Formats: sequence, C-alpha cells, structure tokens
Amino acid sequence: MIRFYNGRVLRFGGGMRMTEDEVWTDGGRIAHVGPKPETLPVFEREIDLKGDLLLPGFKDAHTHTAMTFLRSFADDMPLQDWLYQQVFPHEAKLTPDMVYTFARLGIMEYLSSGITASFDMYVKNDAYAAANIDSGFRTVICSGLNNFDKDPGDIEREYLKFDALHELVSYRLGIHAEYTTSPERMRYMAELAHQYHEPCFTHLCETKAEVEGCVERYGMTPPQLLDSIGFFDYGGGGFHCVWMSEEDIRLFAEKKLWAVTNPCSNLKLASGVAPLDRLAAAGVPLAIGTDGAASNNALDFFREMYLASVLQKVKYEDAAAGGADRVLEMACVGGARAMGLSDCDDIAPGKCADLVVLNLRRPNMQPLHNIPRNVVYAGSKENVRLTMVAGRVLYENGEFFIGEEPEKIYERANQERKRCFR
Amino acid sequence: MIRFYNGRVLRFGGGMRMTEDEVWTDGGRIAHVGPKPETLPVFEREIDLKGDLLLPGFKDAHTHTAMTFLRSFADDMPLQDWLYQQVFPHEAKLTPDMVYTFARLGIMEYLSSGITASFDMYVKNDAYAAANIDSGFRTVICSGLNNFDKDPGDIEREYLKFDALHELVSYRLGIHAEYTTSPERMRYMAELAHQYHEPCFTHLCETKAEVEGCVERYGMTPPQLLDSIGFFDYGGGGFHCVWMSEEDIRLFAEKKLWAVTNPCSNLKLASGVAPLDRLAAAGVPLAIGTDGAASNNALDFFREMYLASVLQKVKYEDAAAGGADRVLEMACVGGARAMGLSDCDDIAPGKCADLVVLNLRRPNMQPLHNIPRNVVYAGSKENVRLTMVAGRVLYENGEFFIGEEPEKIYERANQERKRCFR
Repeated sequence: MIRFYNGRVLRFGGGMRMTEDEVWTDGGRIAHVGPKPETLPVFEREIDLKGDLLLPGFKDAHTHTAMTFLRSFADDMPLQDWLYQQVFPHEAKLTPDMVYTFARLGIMEYLSSGITASFDMYVKNDAYAAANIDSGFRTVICSGLNNFDKDPGDIEREYLKFDALHELVSYRLGIHAEYTTSPERMRYMAELAHQYHEPCFTHLCETKAEVEGCVERYGMTPPQLLDSIGFFDYGGGGFHCVWMSEEDIRLFAEKKLWAVTNPCSNLKLASGVAPLDRLAAAGVPLAIGTDGAASNNALDFFREMYLASVLQKVKYEDAAAGGADRVLEMACVGGARAMGLSDCDDIAPGKCADLVVLNLRRPNMQPLHNIPRNVVYAGSKENVRLTMVAGRVLYENGEFFIGEEPEKIYERANQERKRCFR
Repeated sequence: MIRFYNGRVLRFGGGMRMTEDEVWTDGGRIAHVGPKPETLPVFEREIDLKGDLLLPGFKDAHTHTAMTFLRSFADDMPLQDWLYQQVFPHEAKLTPDMVYTFARLGIMEYLSSGITASFDMYVKNDAYAAANIDSGFRTVICSGLNNFDKDPGDIEREYLKFDALHELVSYRLGIHAEYTTSPERMRYMAELAHQYHEPCFTHLCETKAEVEGCVERYGMTPPQLLDSIGFFDYGGGGFHCVWMSEEDIRLFAEKKLWAVTNPCSNLKLASGVAPLDRLAAAGVPLAIGTDGAASNNALDFFREMYLASVLQKVKYEDAAAGGADRVLEMACVGGARAMGLSDCDDIAPGKCADLVVLNLRRPNMQPLHNIPRNVVYAGSKENVRLTMVAGRVLYENGEFFIGEEPEKIYERANQERKRCFR
C-alpha cells in the first residue's frame, strides 16, 4: 500500500470539495480515504504531500497520441489542406515501430501534464496498445473507421480483441468523420453499436465547411445524419463540437451524448470556439481533449483547461462565462465518464488509483486564495509533482518510470523522423 | 566568466537563426559568441548545454508585478466591475511591505517562465524597486499617473530618482489610462515627455467601452486624443491595443509606437483579441506582456506566446495567420526595444547577459522538426532550465537564487493575504 498524507484532496462525489483526508492505494485501487486512524498499517511507501494537492488525474478525452511524429512539421495551414496534403500522406508511411515510439513519446507528455488516461483514435492499434501497456498507461482506443480502411470487419475483430487484452486497455466504437466515411460504413458502425449495445463516437462539427458539406450531401447536419441511422442509440458523442446548431444541441442533451472540446486544436487550425456555455446550459455532458500534437502542438492539459474557460468569456463577451470549477470537473470527471472509465472519476475507496499531485509550493500557485482557480487559471506542467496510473507512480519530480529511458525514446523518435521525412 | 557550450543559440541580428556557437558572459555582459577557440580561458563556471537552446530572455512588456496579491481572488467579472469594485478598493490597502513581498513572488514566476525583464506599472515604487534589486531582476518602471495620485509632480521626482538608482532599474513615463486621468494630468504628462524627450505609454484601446467612452467625452479615440496633446511626440506606445481603428493603426505605424499585446488578460476579462496581424502588416512594432496576475492569472510567457499566435488564426479565420517566428521575435527582441532596453535584445558580444536555457530533452520538445515552433506552439515552464539576468543565474533546475528562500516568500504572502482580506 502507498500512503498520501499531509496534503489537500480534491474530491468530486457530492459536489467538488477539498478535504485534508489521507489517501491510501492498494494495488491499482484506492483503499482508504479519510482521517488518519489511530494505528497505521505497514506501507510500501509513504508520500508526504507537504500541503500539496492530490486530485483524480486529468482524462484526455480526444487525442491521436502517436501524432507527436508530426509536431511542428506542418503548421499554419487550414484543416482540409493540413489533413489531405500533410497528415494523410505522411500517415501512410507510418510503421508499427513508429507508432510504438511516438505513442511512448506522447504518453510521456501526458504524464508530465497530469493526464492519467487517453481516449485515442489512430492507426496500428497493436503497436499503440503495446506502447501503453509497456508504459503502464491507461488508454481507451476508439475505432476511427473511414474509407481508407480495407475491411470494416477489422473493427469488430479489434473491438473483441482489445477489450479483452489488458486491464489498462479498452475499446470504444467510432468512425473518423462523416466526410471521410461512406454511408455504407456509417451504417455498418451503427449496426455494430446495436449488436453490442455500445456507444459510438466521431469527429463532429469541427469546422463550418464540414457541416456545410454534410448538409449539401445529405440535407442534414452531421449529428442529425448519424442519429437518423441509429449511430447514437446506445450513447456516445462527438469530438470538437464547434459548429453545433440549436437542434444538434437539443439532440446531444436528450441522448446525453458527450461533447468533447479541443480548444487548442480549434484555435490552431482556425476552426473556431466551441459553445461550451450553451452546451452546458442545455445539459450536454462535457469533457476535454488535447487532439493530436500535429494540430495543437502540445499535449498539455493546463493549456486546454485554461482555454476551455477563458475562450468562453470572449465568445460570449462576458467575463463571467466559462467558470473554472466546471472546467476542473470536465477534466477529472467528465472525461472519465465519456470514455467509459467510470471507476476513474473520483478519489473514493474502490476507485482506480489514477492520481496526480500538484505542487502548490511554486510561485504560480501562490497565494492560496482559491486553489481550484489557481489550477485552472495559473497552473502549468511545472506543478505536476507526481502522476500515478493504476497505483503505479509513472512520473515524479520530472522523472519518468515507464520502463525505458527518455533519451532512448527521443533518439528513436528523431531517427524515425529522419527516415520518414527525408 | 561563464561558458555555455555544446548547445544551440537562437540569434536575431540579421534575421532569426540558430547557430551552434559558444557563448561566454563576463560580469553582466556577453563577452564572446562564436566557435570554440583553440585555447580556452579560465572560467568561473562551464555549463554544458547538452544540445539545449540558449536564447535571449523573454521581455514582459506590460505587467503589474505585485498584483500577484489578487491572483484567483476576483475572477469571472467584466473589466470595469473588476477594476472599480475589486482591484481599486483592495489596492488602497497595499503597504510597501506587501508590494515588496508580492513583487518578489511575481519575479519568481517570471524567472520560472524565462522572463528576464519586466515593464511594470504599479504603486509603491520604492518597495517595488527594492524587490527587483534584492532579487537581481531587471525592471523598467512605467509611471501610471491617474486621478487618484496626490501630486503629479511625484512623477518627475520618481523619473529622476529611479533612472539613477541602480543598473537593474530604469523608468519610463506614462499615464494609467485616458478614462482614469483628467485632461490636465494627461497634458502634464505630455509636457514632461517634451521636457525630457521621453517616450510615453498608457493602457489604450483595451475594451470597446473604453474607446466609446473616450469618443463620447472628447470626440476622439484614445490614440488620437493623446496624439493631439503631443503625448506621443517622443515615441512610446499602448498596452493592450485590442480596439484600434484603421486611423489609430496608421498613427501607431507612422510614429513607430509600440503595441504591447496581452492575450491572456484580454481573454480572461472578455476584452477581445488584438488585431496583431493587421498591426504587423501596417508596420506597427509589437511586443508581448502578461498584464498582472489578477487578470491572467499567471505570469507565464509560454501561454502568452502561444495565444499571440493562435488567436490570430481564429480572429482572421486563417490558420496561416499569427506565425510563430514573429511571436518569438516579439517576445525576445520587440519587448526589449519597447522598454528601452536596447542592449537586451540579442545574443551578441557586448549585449546584456540576460539569457535563458530551454531544455529540449523533454517530451513536448520532441521530435526536433522545428525548434522555434516547438517553443511557441508546445513550450511550457517545464522547459526552463536556467534563467540568467545581468550575468547572474537566478533560476536553475527549478531552484531560485534570489537571496531569499521561496518558502519564506510564500509564508509572508499568505500572511499578508489574510491580513488584507479578513
């Protein structure tokens, strides 16, 4: 067992609050949350929090981890050009080894940012899953069926394989996007969802052009089109959700579909600012993702959280919009539930030991007027003192404990980069 | 002498470029930039950069350092309410001791973010200057004359005193803003500028309401009003510059007035997004500031640089807008020149030794497709390995060397906070 003591604990059950409880983990689970008892058991390790903040890890609810291979490679381009001229041609060259290495790199970046699980849609999922398992990191793979895939039947085989593979890996159904997927393949995915009673996800309403194109092709917006074929009958949601009509918002609220926002990527590709305040007011459940490093270009949850709040203020010309507490709940709780990780959404006995310690003894966290606001409005990766996934410390004081030296991963990443881009 | 070797050097003279030169500092200046000579002198210290990036420090060209005392205190309010109901009443309680302590705290945050100089407008300048001198940090104080000040003559006395006080401190003329300063006091400041041939600065065109109010009061926008009384006859510029008319932009371009952008603060207070691409195209010189921690809420130059780029993309609905190279030049070079620190704008022999080492051996800086873009689009305070001001290392590997223990500063900051807000 590992003991965290002498700190502050951010808990969400029954409303967000901060307590001074002790937290003990046992294996991959939280064993005890409460005051120090009279007699203590023997611990494997005791961590003096020194007043620091223990909280449930951030959940990156939409990403393409191995896209670190394109970081700072093709910047300053509109989404369609970026996707068709830069991303797709270079992705065609990706090997399983490259996906493994660049996923390792992305996982390191998650850990340094306090992220404890990712909801990933990408390619070469065997190599990707291995990178996560070897690192000790938790991931939910989302299928990204599109017209490039050879055989849609692979999705069902992957679904059955990856959900049973390892406790750190699970699998959700999804398509890449309406504009990259034929009607037949969209229907195939909806049928799979029905067959397995599974939620279904997709990139959705990311750009204005995407929505206009869909309306032109089908006479319906992407949410309406997908709903009309039963895609969302067992839940699910959309990544980005920038250009949602009032009707789309009503649909998402009624079916409790997750809107996963990606504020940095939406700025970088000039896609726009998602209407989070409107979505929240309508009752749409919300989560946050980084998107891939090719369009962000970092996997930094502090930046995402900050922007998930302050962009709302400018969008609605109202400095009271986009409150910090909601953003923290989206980051820690919403993401977990969107991904189907219902045991990773809080600090409570029996929950997964996916935890982060934020160092409050840094200048950006002082003075201590309001700690949650300090985290959202002033937090930075320099504050991440420790990241634990499934009860194992994978990152502490700037060092990684993921079974391989960082320098080796950087070296391979740069070798692969040279091979791929020469 | 201190030797930096085995790394990359970002230089700006003759266009931004990266070299593999050695850099030696001697006292407060750079003594040598070039290849390793055959024989080396004896050094006080030799720093192996291990491939990391040495660059001129970031210049925070608009801030209110001691406003760290209000961090996360009054969030989510519009600018006018925030200023009149929260900021001004609490500032009235500030003592010199408080300004000293909270300036120390802000300086630590600058150092952890790679900032080597600040352009500060605030109160209790004796205490503020002492905090900088005691920390070894470089600052340019800007007067903020307004209607609360007792005697405008203080400005002239401060100007003469602080410019002669210490090599780390200088002084520039300015008013707080048109909407807080009477016409008589604005004219007084313009006369001082004429008397001493000095540039003149002010908060300017920060909100739409500010510009509308000025037009209502004077029939002119703030830039036009101030120009009409000779305020800008010896140069200067404006902080924020969000709501500039085409005529205002022409005026700034003709007189080479600095537009200092504060993207985080402008989002947080819902003020808007400054038209940086339009300003740059018109030839207006640009710099970046954090503004105070009360409206940001961090003093984090990586966040400012990122937003100084990506917000332009959404503003102009063009992913090619707001390029990263221009942002780095604004941060390192523009800021120095805006503040009158012409010796702090580059890495070259004779320039001030105000330098930063960014650790590229972190996951967010890998792979090395394009290092300047990695810095702007993915950089974070976790990458700041070392910050040197005037030849002295004030921050290295997370530790501060500013003549006082951080814990003591945090303790005093929280004591003062409790006293002030009880």
